[in-house]
Amino acid sequence: MTTPLRVGVAGLGTVGGGVLRLLRDNAEIVAAHAGRVITVTAVSARDRARDRGVTLEGVRWHDDPVALASDPDVDVVVELIGGSDDPARALVFAALAAGRPVVTANKALLARDGVALAVAAEASGASLRFEAAVAGGIPIIKTLREGLAANRIRRIAGILNGTCNFILTNMRERGREFADVLADAQKLGYAEADPSFDIDGVDAAHKLAILAALAFGRAVDFAAVHVEGIRQVSALDIAFAKELGYRIKLLGIARRTEAGVEQRVHPCMVPENSPLARVDGVYNAVVAEGDFVGRVMLEGRGAGAGPTASAVVADLIDVARGRCAPVWGAATERLSALPSVPIGAYSGAYYLRLMVLDRPGVIADVAGALRDAGVSLESMLQHGRAPGEAVPIVLVTHETRESQMREAVDRIERLESVLERPSVIRIEHG
Amino acid sequence: MTTPLRVGVAGLGTVGGGVLRLLRDNAEIVAAHAGRVITVTAVSARDRARDRGVTLEGVRWHDDPVALASDPDVDVVVELIGGSDDPARALVFAALAAGRPVVTANKALLARDGVALAVAAEASGASLRFEAAVAGGIPIIKTLREGLAANRIRRIAGILNGTCNFILTNMRERGREFADVLADAQKLGYAEADPSFDIDGVDAAHKLAILAALAFGRAVDFAAVHVEGIRQVSALDIAFAKELGYRIKLLGIARRTEAGVEQRVHPCMVPENSPLARVDGVYNAVVAEGDFVGRVMLEGRGAGAGPTASAVVADLIDVARGRCAPVWGAATERLSALPSVPIGAYSGAYYLRLMVLDRPGVIADVAGALRDAGVSLESMLQHGRAPGEAVPIVLVTHETRESQMREAVDRIERLESVLERPSVIRIEHG
Repeated sequence: MTTPLRVGVAGLGTVGGGVLRLLRDNAEIVAAHAGRVITVTAVSARDRARDRGVTLEGVRWHDDPVALASDPDVDVVVELIGGSDDPARALVFAALAAGRPVVTANKALLARDGVALAVAAEASGASLRFEAAVAGGIPIIKTLREGLAANRIRRIAGILNGTCNFILTNMRERGREFADVLADAQKLGYAEADPSFDIDGVDAAHKLAILAALAFGRAVDFAAVHVEGIRQVSALDIAFAKELGYRIKLLGIARRTEAGVEQRVHPCMVPENSPLARVDGVYNAVVAEGDFVGRVMLEGRGAGAGPTASAVVADLIDVARGRCAPVWGAATERLSALPSVPIGAYSGAYYLRLMVLDRPGVIADVAGALRDAGVSLESMLQHGRAPGEAVPIVLVTHETRESQMREAVDRIERLESVLERPSVIRIEHG
Repeated sequence: MTTPLRVGVAGLGTVGGGVLRLLRDNAEIVAAHAGRVITVTAVSARDRARDRGVTLEGVRWHDDPVALASDPDVDVVVELIGGSDDPARALVFAALAAGRPVVTANKALLARDGVALAVAAEASGASLRFEAAVAGGIPIIKTLREGLAANRIRRIAGILNGTCNFILTNMRERGREFADVLADAQKLGYAEADPSFDIDGVDAAHKLAILAALAFGRAVDFAAVHVEGIRQVSALDIAFAKELGYRIKLLGIARRTEAGVEQRVHPCMVPENSPLARVDGVYNAVVAEGDFVGRVMLEGRGAGAGPTASAVVADLIDVARGRCAPVWGAATERLSALPSVPIGAYSGAYYLRLMVLDRPGVIADVAGALRDAGVSLESMLQHGRAPGEAVPIVLVTHETRESQMREAVDRIERLESVLERPSVIRIEHG
């Protein structure tokens, strides 16, 4: 048995507390896998008084988290403060500059500063690990970086935000509207008081940018991710999805096309018998499609103290064993120069739901607008009749370019008998 | 860029050919992830003349595979001969004894000689990797050994044999009997001419023994795996399963109980909405349940040249990067002494299907036999009437000990109006 690995933990919220409890409860299992004892020697957090269910006796307390980067009794820094700004950012860069390995769950920082972090890690030879940054306890970072490393990845698609998946699942199961279910989710602690980071897709976009960089061996490019959230998804669309054999999921999708790499986060219609359609509630899942391996899917809990602590400590075990891997799977000088493809170049099938005045000629007008934009229809659905009143019409298109679809929607919206902005949801194979 | 990693491949069948093609087609991706070029310098196979779709020009040919262990131009040996006997066994031990890392897909050898192999690897400091031995391209070995290494695993359950899953899926979808579907599978190349290794559960048992050793940090104990195959599964049972809301799957299950570790491979009734029930055809999947991470599931193609080559080369990339891990996740001296629990101590719910003569008093006799063995019934199902003829009766029990169930079945079988050996299938939560 070699000397213990001494850990400094910055941030003792839900995840930090979980890490301390795991290292205490599973100390023997962790030591067996790590080949040495892993022990917390220093911490930093805002509130000294808070009860975290774990004794901090004998552990050094730093008021300034950045001090962990230079604490002589710390071998590895665990950053669980979060956010892409200081002090999290300053701490991670300071530790890497000092040649000290860093384990973090900070997806925002990685999505925004991923390349600079890799350069800093390479300059000092320190490792930077972030299994907990994406999909909680699911080992998707290790899987893309090591497990599937022999493959040319064609596509990844994932349910990356548990809050959105919980809301969409509840809307479907109980036939309720978004706002009602969001309020419930907030009461249950599955959504934040300010939920915009989750429900507007930003959190999923951070995670997708990280996965895409690993999958395609290129510099992380968060700015190029097309992002739409779930605020516009209505109970009516969910009911139509069911009727058409689909489920609505917020997916993060990155795809290698002839033009480069497409990255997008938005609600999707996925066939109800596809693997991602079945992933409900707070579960996350990621599908990766590789040229040799085919389709692989990983599913598990995407958040929470336990799963996230599991991921953080797995990274610590790798550090303890001296297992190294470049931050983005390959050395930064070997990352590919594949360009990002804008959403306008996207091509696929679309679901389009209109509210129209039920009167003669409406369908002809809508069909004409689609024709004029070069969009071809696969099917149309209208239930019942209510002459002179508002009724929904659902259209499913054949494969269409995004730019054409936008033109069609603009034309349709200008029609006199179309009553509100059409609901547009892309159809994805799951 | 450091020097190339020189690979010697023993066995150039389907998988060996796949490895050669992957290393050629994805050379750049592999080199970026490995930090160096990976190149095949020597091979050994039975048939020199066979076209494998890859040139072997400039590659040294050994008639004796064991010679790869001492070839001075080989840094790492890839063993794809298969089987727990020589020459595969001799080659792996010779390479480890020479301190040369080994990558293998040989589940039979690992299941039977796993501890001796780990001791040999530790003695010389060579690494032994076997991602391709279980579940093809799914990185389940790395996930258990590294990704979930912080957890106390409570249970693993998996669909580990693609041939069986293909047969059971086809029986269900097309309402056909086992023998017919097996014949089709043989024509399609999804089943061997002698299919017993797959359909009798031996292949799944090898894989389960390997997964259980990793999950529970103990010496592999293949002899303790309770094994039943799928020959006895009838179209009638599959139809009843559907009616009861279940699907029949051949699962490998290892569970930590108060008494130790339970390992079993047998057909199971799993609820149709459980994740494993949805895994159809040639796909494999493994569920792991850990104390911190909760339930994680991995799904993908369990066999074939592409997925298996993906796993072999991922191991080679780990070797190239110098990433090390003990064979069974922890040093052999740290493996736990948890005992194996015999199947007689298993406890769970059972599906029981009888063929009886439809005459007064039969149900009373059966119910009496169950009562006398201490088995309590949850439900009973009988369709239609056919006085004086054979009819099926289905019984579902509450949780029952295996030993009691066996006694009950013996009693029932002796009843005069029971016409054949009852069909008994354990119910599992999936």
